[in-house]
This record gives sequence, structure tokens and C-alpha cells, in this order.
Amino acid sequence: MTTGVRRRMGVEERRRQLIGVALELFGSRSPDDVSIDEIAAAAGISRPLVYHYFPGKQSLYEAALRRAAEQLAALFEEPHEGPLGARLLRVMGRFFDFVDEHGPGFSALMRGGPAAGSSAASAMVDEVRQAAYTQILAHLGVAEPSPRLALVVRSWVSLAESTALLWLDGREVPRAELELQLVHDFAALTAVSAAYDEAMAAVLVDVLAGEPADGPFGELVGRLARLAPAVLAVPPQRTR
Amino acid sequence: MTTGVRRRMGVEERRRQLIGVALELFGSRSPDDVSIDEIAAAAGISRPLVYHYFPGKQSLYEAALRRAAEQLAALFEEPHEGPLGARLLRVMGRFFDFVDEHGPGFSALMRGGPAAGSSAASAMVDEVRQAAYTQILAHLGVAEPSPRLALVVRSWVSLAESTALLWLDGREVPRAELELQLVHDFAALTAVSAAYDEAMAAVLVDVLAGEPADGPFGELVGRLARLAPAVLAVPPQRTR
Repeated sequence: MTTGVRRRMGVEERRRQLIGVALELFGSRSPDDVSIDEIAAAAGISRPLVYHYFPGKQSLYEAALRRAAEQLAALFEEPHEGPLGARLLRVMGRFFDFVDEHGPGFSALMRGGPAAGSSAASAMVDEVRQAAYTQILAHLGVAEPSPRLALVVRSWVSLAESTALLWLDGREVPRAELELQLVHDFAALTAVSAAYDEAMAAVLVDVLAGEPADGPFGELVGRLARLAPAVLAVPPQRTR
Repeated sequence: MTTGVRRRMGVEERRRQLIGVALELFGSRSPDDVSIDEIAAAAGISRPLVYHYFPGKQSLYEAALRRAAEQLAALFEEPHEGPLGARLLRVMGRFFDFVDEHGPGFSALMRGGPAAGSSAASAMVDEVRQAAYTQILAHLGVAEPSPRLALVVRSWVSLAESTALLWLDGREVPRAELELQLVHDFAALTAVSAAYDEAMAAVLVDVLAGEPADGPFGELVGRLARLAPAVLAVPPQRTR
């Protein structure tokens, strides 16, 4: 590092810097509200120089999105060790860290919009969904999922997205609660499917196998078991 | 009706006809793949005449979307009588009828895209989500939902959307099964939230109150109760 003298950056280094600056700005305001002038000012370079590295805002936006998508896909990677509930909870913790840090950018991307609704952006969102789906199947140890299991995993990924978006809109429920809730939701959606399908029941047994009583799944089952008498004590209005 | 002579239509009637023709075409192909020429041909009028009623494809698309959104919002209306599970199941039946009939148009709208990603389209999608949310709260008899209940209802609406989209992509799981599964998912998401929150437990008691043993909720509880021994018989790997 030299002091007092602005170091000259290489092309790749400058591109990385601009992407980082853009992502930071998109973390506090929607990409549609951030101008190339602001990105240039925050990076300490001139507006024409930004255009030297990226031909337009859309191309800088897509490069930033590409980096964010890679980060997001990577955080679903988790060692295949220990109980599944704890693994999923760590993944959800990193997912909410990401959502927290990239709030307005994440919302704009998921809700579509002038900058975010491009087909390149949609394709990247789909890639991230696919990465999350693949990771979860790997944790379940399933190479060829049945259509029902595929549906449960994909709907859960979509539930994680929508829960995060709803959380960003006011942050009224603490995020730690939602991270745990999403892990529970995974078990709940699996259990609903398992109630009607033997292959899914086998998946549920695998999911709950090796779960400690004080892990996320064990705790949910315990709490629901304690809640059951209150809920089921209600006399049915009609019976067969 | 006159025969042999093409009846002249009034402006509103012609607009309604064009919207109907467009929606029918969007039911078999994405709006992006349907041209004004095809809409004109299907309506039996000239291309310039279509532009007389709608200044461009986008305006015809948005009018078609407006009608579809009204139909979609209306099908969440259901008399407040009888068990909640059966009400939700009827709503899901109508929802999948709609999705079935408008497949490619529905996918294009929900996934965004050149024609569907406009802010007018996003606003209409949000209106439909809001209508579904309001209807479900009314069925629950809740005027001022807690943040947790609001989140459960909104995430369930989003789960219904994503399940329908996944179903359209191959139709591998029978729709009747998914309609029932979504009703069960509602109870499951409510139960997960109820396990940690007393107010939500009260909502769950209300949801299950008056449910017959052979209704969607009664049946799920029965099936899960029978499944529990197999699932819970798995010895925990670690305990406290």
C-alpha cells in the first residue's frame, strides 16, 4: 500500500471494486434509485471511467447480481455432518445475513422491476433456486427425487424466499424466529406430504433419524405433542 | 342475433371480445409469443382495428391481465359457512381450475418477462395477493392479525402460487392431491407458528374447531397420528 498516492488498479481489480461499490449501494436503496454518478462518486472515479469498465448501468447491475448470486448459492453449502435440522438452521442463518445485508437489492430482484426484471436477472434467480434445491437433496442423500419430494423441496425454497421478503417489509418478527420457523416448515411440509405417500414417509423418517431431542426438529415435535391436547380437545362439530 | 351478417359491436363489447380472445391465446402460449396479428385474426378483425381499441399490445395485455386478476381475486370469495378446511379446499379447486385454464399466461405473469414484468402487472399481482390474504383473514374471523399470523397467511398465499407454478411445469403430481396438500400446508404452517406463540396456538384451536374427523384437517391429523410411531420410533442419535 502506498499512502497519499492513488494506486492504479488493473482492469479486473477495478471491475471488482465497482461491483462491490454497487452492491453496497444496492444494500440500502433499490438498484433503480442508484445512478451511475453515485457509483462513480462512491468509487472515487469519473462517470466516463465507469463506462470504460461497464458499457452501461444494466451491465454493471448484472455483474453485481452475478456476484450476489454466487454468494447466495455458496451459502447453501454446508458440511454433511451432524443432524440435518442444525445444518438447515445454519444455512438459514447465513441466508438471513445475506438478506439483511442486501435488503433493497434483494427485494428489487425478487419482485422484478425496471433494472431487476431482465431475463438475465430471472435466469440468475433460477440458478440460485436450483443450487439451493440441489444442496438440500444432497443433504437428504437423495440423488433421484420423486416428483413429490422435488415439489416439497422446491416449494420450501420458495417459502424461504417469500418469508425473507415479508420479513424485510417491516421486520416485525425477529429474524432468529423466522430462521427456526423455516427449518420447522421444512419438516412440516415433508410431514404433510408423508401423510399421504409412503415414499415421502420414508424421507421423513430419514430426516428425523439422528435428530437430537434438543435440535430444531426434536424441539418442534416435543412442542407440538404438548400443544396437541389443547388443540384436539375441541370437540368436532360433526363426525362421520 | 342476425345470421350471415357480421353484427357491429359497440366499443365496450369489442374491447371485451378482444380481451377474451387474448386471454384464450395466453392460455396456450406465453403473451410474449402471441402477436397482435394473431389476436386480430382470432377476433376476425383487422390489425389496425385492434389498435383502434387498444393503443398497443401492452395496453391490451394489461386489460387482459386486469380481467384475469379480477377473476382470480373473486375465486377466493367463499361463503363463511361450514368447516374451514372444506372452504379452503373449494377455493383451491377453483384456483387450480384458473391456473389450468390460463397456464402459460399465469406462468409468464408470475415469472416476469418482457410483457409480464411491467410495474402495472406487478401491481395487479400484488392486488390479487392482497385480496387472497384479506379473504383468508375474514374466514379466520380475524380483523387485526398479529405480525406472526399475517406472515403465516401471506407465506401460505405465496406457497399456493409457487406450488401451482411447479405443477404447471410438467404436471407430475395430480392437481387434486396438490389442492388438498395446500389446505394441509395451511394447517401445518399455522401449527409450526403455534408451537412457539400462544396467540397463534389460539388461532390454531379456532382453525381446528368444528372440523369434522373426515374433513381435510381431521384426516391429516388422523394420518399424522398414525404415522407418528414409525417416525418417532427412530432412536435419537444424541440426547441432552
